[in-house]
Amino acid sequence: MPSTGLSIIPINGVGEIRPGDEIATHVAAAAHDSGTPLADGDCLVVTQKVVSKAEGRLVLLDHSDRDARLRLVESESVRILRRRGDLVISETSHGFVCANAGVDLSNVEAGQAALLPVDPDRSAKHIRDALRARSSVEVAVIISDTFGRPWRNGLTDVAIGVSGIAAIVDLRDTTDALGRALQVTELALADEIAPAAELVMGKATGVPAAIVRGLSKEWFREGSARELIRPASEDLFR
Amino acid sequence: MPSTGLSIIPINGVGEIRPGDEIATHVAAAAHDSGTPLADGDCLVVTQKVVSKAEGRLVLLDHSDRDARLRLVESESVRILRRRGDLVISETSHGFVCANAGVDLSNVEAGQAALLPVDPDRSAKHIRDALRARSSVEVAVIISDTFGRPWRNGLTDVAIGVSGIAAIVDLRDTTDALGRALQVTELALADEIAPAAELVMGKATGVPAAIVRGLSKEWFREGSARELIRPASEDLFR
Repeated sequence: MPSTGLSIIPINGVGEIRPGDEIATHVAAAAHDSGTPLADGDCLVVTQKVVSKAEGRLVLLDHSDRDARLRLVESESVRILRRRGDLVISETSHGFVCANAGVDLSNVEAGQAALLPVDPDRSAKHIRDALRARSSVEVAVIISDTFGRPWRNGLTDVAIGVSGIAAIVDLRDTTDALGRALQVTELALADEIAPAAELVMGKATGVPAAIVRGLSKEWFREGSARELIRPASEDLFR
Repeated sequence: MPSTGLSIIPINGVGEIRPGDEIATHVAAAAHDSGTPLADGDCLVVTQKVVSKAEGRLVLLDHSDRDARLRLVESESVRILRRRGDLVISETSHGFVCANAGVDLSNVEAGQAALLPVDPDRSAKHIRDALRARSSVEVAVIISDTFGRPWRNGLTDVAIGVSGIAAIVDLRDTTDALGRALQVTELALADEIAPAAELVMGKATGVPAAIVRGLSKEWFREGSARELIRPASEDLFR
């Protein structure tokens, strides 16, 4: 079904999130106060950083202690893929392959580091359930994080947690405009929604959430970021 | 500067593009006829497929001839990274690492295959210059294609040609909300705009172009998809 277009709306005014805070409450209030309240059929994208903070996924770390940093990265990894200097590319317990196991030193208090949420899908579901219960809106939720990638410079946002929307859309059994089976069979939908949202969030402006409005209704179903993880046995680059 | 949000607008009614067609003319007319004409400050995203068709980057190929397919992929590659069955991951002459050298069998006439544009940046610039000359609009142009990636399932769109916008935004010398230097130094902006546009284009609906409206003005400058190519010497996964 042809799209009529999307709106990508930053949610300003969320404020600082502290351990124990309910993200759904803060995000819904900020969206409302900004004049762009959440609506049914929206996909809310929330950065991993604020989810980690809300869930208390903060540890003590002396940022200048290189050995301590490396030990922390290793403790958050199940498998190291590559090392170069201070850079470690590893597989996290979730199955994500990324730099430094997603351990983040920015936007946290000095002497602390933020770790990835233990179960980002569950984090996404928690926010979605809370929005349904408190704000009576039925939305999907994606938890996003910023990853590098091989072969290409720069970082982009990807989905690490998903609730209420397909992470992968299977185009198998659809045909192209000339009636033939498509070569492209799996579209990583959640990994397109996450970077779209990042365009309005901004690493330096501290906007931690955005609404992606207008996505095709047929994409909304139960989903999981695990759909996005390629098994090591199928991966040619481990 | 905080974003006020984006609109992602599909351009319907572009029609079939044939060798020799001017994409700028078709896209501008379709956008106008759809009630969403191109405007200054827009970023136009156009799929590689229609650019390849317009530029006559079509070759004869018997789709059922596996050996012929492999020979074509190899001829479009400067280096093979991996093989598995019919799948070849290779580096193209442009420096892109992708499956099957970007050779595409879908949405072309039977007996043909579409190759990547020879110089997608130049293709983007051509469209941009034509829009300025014919429609008096100053827009950026991104040529997008659909690539797979290691470690994660599914395909996403990336930028293979860029004109008039930064492909990479350097966040070095910016600080986070707590005043410290950001760890994230390079944002692959064009590789976030491309998948955002893909969300409204759709592999099966045949919409070959979309407008991304509302991007930060400071991002508009001369740019190139070559900024996105990580040199092999810096790449840990070759």
